[in-house]
Amino acid sequence: MTDQNWVDVGVFRLPMSAPEDVSELKARLESGQIQAETIVGIIAQTEGTGYARGYASLCLQLLLADYLDISPQAVFDRIPMMMIGLCGGLMSPHYTVFTRRTVAAPARPAGKRLTVGTANTRVLQPEEYGTLSQVKLVANAVQGAIADAGITELEDVHCVEVKCPAMTPARLAAAAQRGVSVVSQNLGQASSMAKGASALGIALALEEIPEAKLTEGVINRDRNLYTQRGSVSAGGEQSACRILVMGNSDQSVSPYRVGHGIMADQLATDGVYAALNSAGLSQPLADQQSRIVQMFVNCGADAVTAVRDRRHTIHSDFLSGYAGIMAKAVANAVVASITGDPMILASAGNEHQGTPGSNLVAAIVSAE
Amino acid sequence: MTDQNWVDVGVFRLPMSAPEDVSELKARLESGQIQAETIVGIIAQTEGTGYARGYASLCLQLLLADYLDISPQAVFDRIPMMMIGLCGGLMSPHYTVFTRRTVAAPARPAGKRLTVGTANTRVLQPEEYGTLSQVKLVANAVQGAIADAGITELEDVHCVEVKCPAMTPARLAAAAQRGVSVVSQNLGQASSMAKGASALGIALALEEIPEAKLTEGVINRDRNLYTQRGSVSAGGEQSACRILVMGNSDQSVSPYRVGHGIMADQLATDGVYAALNSAGLSQPLADQQSRIVQMFVNCGADAVTAVRDRRHTIHSDFLSGYAGIMAKAVANAVVASITGDPMILASAGNEHQGTPGSNLVAAIVSAE
Amino acid sequence: MTDQNWVDVGVFRLPMSAPEDVSELKARLESGQIQAETIVGIIAQTEGTGYARGYASLCLQLLLADYLDISPQAVFDRIPMMMIGLCGGLMSPHYTVFTRRTVAAPARPAGKRLTVGTANTRVLQPEEYGTLSQVKLVANAVQGAIADAGITELEDVHCVEVKCPAMTPARLAAAAQRGVSVVSQNLGQASSMAKGASALGIALALEEIPEAKLTEGVINRDRNLYTQRGSVSAGGEQSACRILVMGNSDQSVSPYRVGHGIMADQLATDGVYAALNSAGLSQPLADQQSRIVQMFVNCGADAVTAVRDRRHTIHSDFLSGYAGIMAKAVANAVVASITGDPMILASAGNEHQGTPGSNLVAAIVSAE
Amino acid sequence: MTDQNWVDVGVFRLPMSAPEDVSELKARLESGQIQAETIVGIIAQTEGTGYARGYASLCLQLLLADYLDISPQAVFDRIPMMMIGLCGGLMSPHYTVFTRRTVAAPARPAGKRLTVGTANTRVLQPEEYGTLSQVKLVANAVQGAIADAGITELEDVHCVEVKCPAMTPARLAAAAQRGVSVVSQNLGQASSMAKGASALGIALALEEIPEAKLTEGVINRDRNLYTQRGSVSAGGEQSACRILVMGNSDQSVSPYRVGHGIMADQLATDGVYAALNSAGLSQPLADQQSRIVQMFVNCGADAVTAVRDRRHTIHSDFLSGYAGIMAKAVANAVVASITGDPMILASAGNEHQGTPGSNLVAAIVSAE
Repeated sequence: MTDQNWVDVGVFRLPMSAPEDVSELKARLESGQIQAETIVGIIAQTEGTGYARGYASLCLQLLLADYLDISPQAVFDRIPMMMIGLCGGLMSPHYTVFTRRTVAAPARPAGKRLTVGTANTRVLQPEEYGTLSQVKLVANAVQGAIADAGITELEDVHCVEVKCPAMTPARLAAAAQRGVSVVSQNLGQASSMAKGASALGIALALEEIPEAKLTEGVINRDRNLYTQRGSVSAGGEQSACRILVMGNSDQSVSPYRVGHGIMADQLATDGVYAALNSAGLSQPLADQQSRIVQMFVNCGADAVTAVRDRRHTIHSDFLSGYAGIMAKAVANAVVASITGDPMILASAGNEHQGTPGSNLVAAIVSAE
Repeated sequence: MTDQNWVDVGVFRLPMSAPEDVSELKARLESGQIQAETIVGIIAQTEGTGYARGYASLCLQLLLADYLDISPQAVFDRIPMMMIGLCGGLMSPHYTVFTRRTVAAPARPAGKRLTVGTANTRVLQPEEYGTLSQVKLVANAVQGAIADAGITELEDVHCVEVKCPAMTPARLAAAAQRGVSVVSQNLGQASSMAKGASALGIALALEEIPEAKLTEGVINRDRNLYTQRGSVSAGGEQSACRILVMGNSDQSVSPYRVGHGIMADQLATDGVYAALNSAGLSQPLADQQSRIVQMFVNCGADAVTAVRDRRHTIHSDFLSGYAGIMAKAVANAVVASITGDPMILASAGNEHQGTPGSNLVAAIVSAE
Repeated sequence: MTDQNWVDVGVFRLPMSAPEDVSELKARLESGQIQAETIVGIIAQTEGTGYARGYASLCLQLLLADYLDISPQAVFDRIPMMMIGLCGGLMSPHYTVFTRRTVAAPARPAGKRLTVGTANTRVLQPEEYGTLSQVKLVANAVQGAIADAGITELEDVHCVEVKCPAMTPARLAAAAQRGVSVVSQNLGQASSMAKGASALGIALALEEIPEAKLTEGVINRDRNLYTQRGSVSAGGEQSACRILVMGNSDQSVSPYRVGHGIMADQLATDGVYAALNSAGLSQPLADQQSRIVQMFVNCGADAVTAVRDRRHTIHSDFLSGYAGIMAKAVANAVVASITGDPMILASAGNEHQGTPGSNLVAAIVSAE
Repeated sequence: MTDQNWVDVGVFRLPMSAPEDVSELKARLESGQIQAETIVGIIAQTEGTGYARGYASLCLQLLLADYLDISPQAVFDRIPMMMIGLCGGLMSPHYTVFTRRTVAAPARPAGKRLTVGTANTRVLQPEEYGTLSQVKLVANAVQGAIADAGITELEDVHCVEVKCPAMTPARLAAAAQRGVSVVSQNLGQASSMAKGASALGIALALEEIPEAKLTEGVINRDRNLYTQRGSVSAGGEQSACRILVMGNSDQSVSPYRVGHGIMADQLATDGVYAALNSAGLSQPLADQQSRIVQMFVNCGADAVTAVRDRRHTIHSDFLSGYAGIMAKAVANAVVASITGDPMILASAGNEHQGTPGSNLVAAIVSAE
């Protein structure tokens, strides 16, 4: 192992006063606390609807374009910008900036510490969305991101975030023009299939499911196949799948560690503690709350219609269009009631991301 | 103390599959588990919008009219029917039926046990809504309900539920026709003032605030005046204020006890434990969860714009019409994550019900 | 022709101040203007969500049960109660009561006048929803309702209103228990298929499409098959399909005539004039507006994503759950801007009810 | 009159496929059909929520910054960017670009033709929002914009669009810090007051109301005071009031004319025809529809609860947060049913903009 193999990974969780507010990152770039060229990924929780995601992304791109001296589009191509929209309840708009830089060898190893890696698939054609082709492309890219992170054992991977392309009217039209068929003419269903395929790609890369079980027919159908360490969302702004992997590595000297746990249902707080324990915190938390750097929750409340045999109304009546927001608001509240801080990430993803109704919880914790 | 002073109080928490579903109560009336004439109050959590509240109420009235052999309207006049609408998140539609009957003296006193009492104010004129007149009428009625419950010490009162009249277009028109002025021509503001006056009435009756501090100007203005044991909602179906008081009494042989606690903010789970402890449960809860009979939460998330300095978006953008639902969904989730059951009552009331952003939590617990 | 063949048909369009407000009908029953036993059908436009539909229906049933001296359920079984919910825009909550009674032969024939007929299919099993079986059952029932109306020429049928069963969780569960498969496990899709089958049933009965073209595969797929005189909605309260046919007949001495027209798209006002002309009004309308008794519009704005090549956003973003309300609000506004009255019926039905994006418009007009 | 007094005014109505889509303007800048330096104002109708307005504005600013070789902020300062959000119903997202350039004297005068003028107030302090101070500042700025347009007779002004600052949490905080009081602590109410003051400012400048009637007490209270040629919206992105005036002038050689009319209520189509006639189109429209260049509608449906004594539900129940969208969707549909094109501007403004429930309609029409 040579000196340049050592990496230091930073995590900056920054509040936004509005989708266009990038002042907190700007201040850190100006002060030198963050060097633009070390930024390897940004995951944001934006308020408002889908259009606010694009707005936030553009504002971040414009800021970083200045510091990196490249075009805003080049920023987007270089850095995975994962915008999770639609805040509800106590959810607090913010963005998490991941940095990574190589450092000189430390005096002594610190034990496994946080590392992150990123990768992209190639651009997907609309007819590939939601197919085995996408599963395999994502699986390969996840493996690439794991390697990029310097992780050598799969069990050291604790959270894989994927942003994949959503189906759009323009893409449907393009496919029709080329005479190719897509998995669904319905935008929502096609995008859901794309998310399902991405999740299965994660599961395949993490060896949570054997490749033999993967056929076209299982995507969004066989609920026994899933990843328990992945969170997927889709966006029309993406044309390739963007991957960001979080794990621990012997080669990292980051002050942080990452862990994960599973909430079997929305009330299963033991899953939150499991995530914190996995990252190095013991119970009772009490004064250790301040060591929690960030939580990433993938919420599944809207995949089911009841919790512990109690019927809920997430899908009913005039609220049916708000199922995802409600699911995130609920998971955010439960996790925040333990960590003491609602400014954590909550994403809603049902497709092959855990058993129906469960939550995946990843925790980044200060190691010292 | 004579025999007839002893009371037994029952609490039945029954699920609804839809607003019109009263089958669970019907089954208990048919089996004799509940006698219609012992029912002293019903508090429901209905799904859907305000109209579903009236629908559920009518269906309960029709059922009880059959068993009591009185008209549906007479049922409404006799039994406080408190319908809390707008379920969100994990909230599970249900209704709680309170029964009370006098019983022969028990072999030995059981210690203080659950009792309930009810009372009504006289019918209020629209010009009285949100005024000191309403404050005093509610205060008197709360005192009446406390006496009805057989409670002699104010500290034994743990939860006061009030349903007061809401302002309606018809009432505005009637007031205009009579040439009298109302606190606001805006339906929402006038109803909010009515809730504020009701809450201050509770606080006055419970001696939480001195009468000297009560002037017309303080209603919905002076946030330092509040009750910490009251929950108020308004409905156009009400013309008088309906009061239901829960407390403990030496004269009760109920198998249940009630207690309460305060969540200082939405993440303050210690308030939930305080309520459970107050009702007789010790920590850790673990296998005592099954002793929890019902929880009544009054939620205040939408009274503020942040939790622990983290901005939330409950009032922002396209979700602003859903602030109350979101507040209830969040409080329900946090409390349910401790009790293990989301079929609990969550009502959203800001006006003089605790400090802004806090929750009031009442717990009914099996004593044995 | 004997005396009893002559019928008089009444149409009463009555405003509601709330879903439970049946006071206008009650006043007419009390005054004798309407005799309860002559009521053959009620079509309501209720505000609020789906639960308000049930609430309004129950209140109408309770009122009529009193006057007919039968149970509320028997009222529902006897009189088609078609509740159309979700008012938006200028839509004004109301209900239309159709009466029919036999009368002595008039001095001289009046020309064809309004008649109405009703019929029910048998109760459908959930596995029949959205199948050819439903198509044929509805077709037969529509033929029965036409005969009931005393209509002998199909061209005299101007509007067929159908309320069919919606899929519900309970019905899905029942089907699963019996081991039978349904057209879709998705409640919305299964209900949409049921509406599509109903619409094709109308088209078959009206000979708008040949039976030979009807195979299982065409339901909700072949958009070239449709009725131009039918409007279908679904409700969980229905277990059979309820049919109400409006047309003109030589045997009627009603003061009214019915006609219909097609709006090729949402801006095609010529379709409104065609409906009015078909019912007997000439242009310019001017002072003839007062002769318009009621309009029934079936709206298709949400079946397409553009009008005259201008993209609309009915299905986009945070409003996607409100597509039907928006479609109805738009059609109501355009038609009302011609008739001068927004208290008209607007129902949103896409499935085989006209070409995508078109509106069906029926007009009942005073003949003298 | 010297040569440079002659102006040519262009109007380009361009569709957007999404809030960030500025491709239509880019194409015209590239082809030279539009010169960036001639652009004097842009009024957009964006889909989605408020955040999409900012997003669209930023994208337009970035594009024009390139062509004008100034910063995006300088573009915003130079060109009034009036973003009207929240499309509903058939509303079709688009933006209207106004250009103006001086031209050589034409051979002969063309009669009065379209001209536009713009002006800004100085930056307003939050404590000035909704006060007489704002009224007067806006009145002065409107006079300035009229002069800028080269209009000498007030009757030649047909439409005044104002975008004024909205109250924001940051502004409330700043005012509190400086110890000054604002008209309301409620963001919505304070912004509504700001709109009311702006509308009164227009009315004052157009001499629709005498200055003597203007006292602090009348703002948003005295509904007898209003402009019938103004449309106001508010945005947090504005710190000054931005004014754009449309009128006709002898000094213009524009191919267009502008006119206006009043819809006394939502169904009063004669107001649409009045606007078209005022701009030079005669009835029947028929093949003259193609001469309509753009319509600007200010909608008031949500200022009242009924149309022609028919109650509507725009403010009721779960839809109350969507009153403005519904109002715009309704007005858009009615006007578009006459013009044949739903890609027209609809803004919802109640405060002193016409009598309650009325619409202001301005039409730009091709003169030849």
